[in-house]
Amino acid sequence: MKVEIITIGDELLIGQVTDTNSTWIAHQITRHGFEVVAISSVGDCSENIIKAIDIAFERADILLLTGGIGPTNDDITKHTLCSYFHTALELNDEVLQNIESIFLKRNLLLNKLTYNQAYVPASSNVIQNSEGTAPILWFEKEDKTLVSLPGVPYEMQTAMYKDVIPLLIKRFHVTEYISRSCIVTGITESDLASKLADFELLLPSGYSLAYLPSLGYISLRLSVWGHEHIEELKQLMRNLKKIVKSYYISKGTKLPEELLSDKLQKKKLTLSTAESCTGGHIAHKITVVPNASKFFIGSIVSYANSVKEQLLNVDKNTIELHGVVSKEVVEQMVINVSKTLNTNCSIAVSGYMGPDGGTKDQPVGTVWIATKYNDDLLFQKHHLGLNREYNIERTANLAILQLIKMIGK
Amino acid sequence: MKVEIITIGDELLIGQVTDTNSTWIAHQITRHGFEVVAISSVGDCSENIIKAIDIAFERADILLLTGGIGPTNDDITKHTLCSYFHTALELNDEVLQNIESIFLKRNLLLNKLTYNQAYVPASSNVIQNSEGTAPILWFEKEDKTLVSLPGVPYEMQTAMYKDVIPLLIKRFHVTEYISRSCIVTGITESDLASKLADFELLLPSGYSLAYLPSLGYISLRLSVWGHEHIEELKQLMRNLKKIVKSYYISKGTKLPEELLSDKLQKKKLTLSTAESCTGGHIAHKITVVPNASKFFIGSIVSYANSVKEQLLNVDKNTIELHGVVSKEVVEQMVINVSKTLNTNCSIAVSGYMGPDGGTKDQPVGTVWIATKYNDDLLFQKHHLGLNREYNIERTANLAILQLIKMIGK
Repeated sequence: MKVEIITIGDELLIGQVTDTNSTWIAHQITRHGFEVVAISSVGDCSENIIKAIDIAFERADILLLTGGIGPTNDDITKHTLCSYFHTALELNDEVLQNIESIFLKRNLLLNKLTYNQAYVPASSNVIQNSEGTAPILWFEKEDKTLVSLPGVPYEMQTAMYKDVIPLLIKRFHVTEYISRSCIVTGITESDLASKLADFELLLPSGYSLAYLPSLGYISLRLSVWGHEHIEELKQLMRNLKKIVKSYYISKGTKLPEELLSDKLQKKKLTLSTAESCTGGHIAHKITVVPNASKFFIGSIVSYANSVKEQLLNVDKNTIELHGVVSKEVVEQMVINVSKTLNTNCSIAVSGYMGPDGGTKDQPVGTVWIATKYNDDLLFQKHHLGLNREYNIERTANLAILQLIKMIGK
Repeated sequence: MKVEIITIGDELLIGQVTDTNSTWIAHQITRHGFEVVAISSVGDCSENIIKAIDIAFERADILLLTGGIGPTNDDITKHTLCSYFHTALELNDEVLQNIESIFLKRNLLLNKLTYNQAYVPASSNVIQNSEGTAPILWFEKEDKTLVSLPGVPYEMQTAMYKDVIPLLIKRFHVTEYISRSCIVTGITESDLASKLADFELLLPSGYSLAYLPSLGYISLRLSVWGHEHIEELKQLMRNLKKIVKSYYISKGTKLPEELLSDKLQKKKLTLSTAESCTGGHIAHKITVVPNASKFFIGSIVSYANSVKEQLLNVDKNTIELHGVVSKEVVEQMVINVSKTLNTNCSIAVSGYMGPDGGTKDQPVGTVWIATKYNDDLLFQKHHLGLNREYNIERTANLAILQLIKMIGK
């Protein structure tokens, strides 16, 4: 059963707000066997909304709209739907009661604009919004269905969970979409594709393999329609894992920092970082994940060489002899940060992130990463690009992945 | 000039990835005077891509496509565009050189799939991708323009900044669109809108005032078509500045960390940070800006209390008496980090970022920020929300803005 999602709001078209509603809806309804064929965003303009609905009904059976149903003047979705379905607004007592109870709970006086929310198109079926004042409207027209939902994410999500998804499942008979993912590192997308060329060629019909590259790693997703394929899918993923074995990090779609967090907590290990060129970004990524305080102790961001010498006891002569971007310097950094902050594991990085800097032998993009896991040390040198921001992000990911691989299962 | 953005990829339609490319592109090109009329996402399916292009050309003059141009089999945008524009692939030596230089730099061998990236549609103008192997393709057809960009965000963003936006501006003469911006902090969007209600009402015809809220500050942009309005625009901005005076940070669209970087370099000041709850994010933001090494010395990320005591000499009794999220603790942090790392300026933060943690008196979202500028100290307590990631980002911005205000002109 084909679905199109239409998100409505000027804020989307000027890039003020990222449309996360579509991602959420697509993820949920795909899991329940619906196929999203397109996602569109249009502004708060009646003509453009109607055009988008017309286009969408040509390629989909079900339209899910979000946004443009608030009480203020710039919200016009409800009036547009009235004109589209040739119907008029009428007062709905149930909606009015819902609004009144919400306002009572919040100790607010009902104003005219909010009262108007209780007027709904006569030809629509109304679903109560348990989180807000704008009702959910369900329209049917021949074989097609259109559902208008609030743009406020938690209102939309509650309505989808509680009412809209169950009603869609009941109304339409659908097969399930299943997928399995994994992440790999240390290989380019094209090399990976070459390695997986035969695997892809021999995939049973209906399967698709997708490559999703990030800075420092690639996610692979194998998917197929129909839950009856689940055992075959699992077996195929085991085969895939064998082929990409030496680059394989983990199954699933978790971020590197989430995987490291899981691993460190499971093994009751502690972590510190000594960061030069990443300037605290590794520590930041790790501490964005909830519960970081259970294993992360701290970081010494030694941007200036004086800090490397003073707080990380890096030998001045080593810096002079080997350069600050060297195996020898990150070795002292990784050992001494775990000594100073008393941790089992540590990460140290030093590199030239650009756009300026670097030397003839060590141009911009050169980075050394050292990781320490108990008494083991691992060193890797990388040659990255010229973009400072991406180099920092890539270095942080590579460093986290290096420690994950080192810790193992 | 009307623009539609089309993002291509199955991962968008199954809700595995949020389409942040559209937001980024919409934000950038709106700033340059283009009008985004719609955003569409379709899967890696030739028929659906062609349908989306046809639809888009009916409502827009310029189509910006992202995605589906990697070296792997699931990427079909290039072949689809060949068939759409009735052209064929041919080897492009410049692209091949670019690919070879990327692979050489990374010490990788060129494989067949990547080699194929150098084949481009004969009728397209090619723009080199400085961050990856997939070239940017620019097609013209009668009065319409279509640009195919990589889906990998950093590749797309670099190409847009360096080449596509300048070329679009040159080609479509949108230089007549003029705007002035400023950033303000310490006021909600609705309070700001109330303060500016009369100003907005009295704006000469043709002007528009946009509110672009970020975490911790709001950008205001006043814009109008036609360079003849430049003096009037400047005068209006001076009026606006007077109205929002106590919240005003700076004119322009620079990020807080860029403004701080300018200020510190101009005044020949040095900076260090002592970060608890932000986990290195302030140092990261500051060091993403090129030339950070000219003023930034380092950071002590004291995630665990032991690090606060050991490296920042925070008194154990102070923590016990006042709690770790307190004015007294950030005071010691901010003074001692600038003493230890020998800097004129410093920033210290401590807070509960959530989702768990906090105390009855100091719930999740409570944060103390201390800033030091020579011998002056400034303290601010904030009450943020429940979302960990947003709290960290907002705290980092608020801390940087606090130091900017303190240093003054």
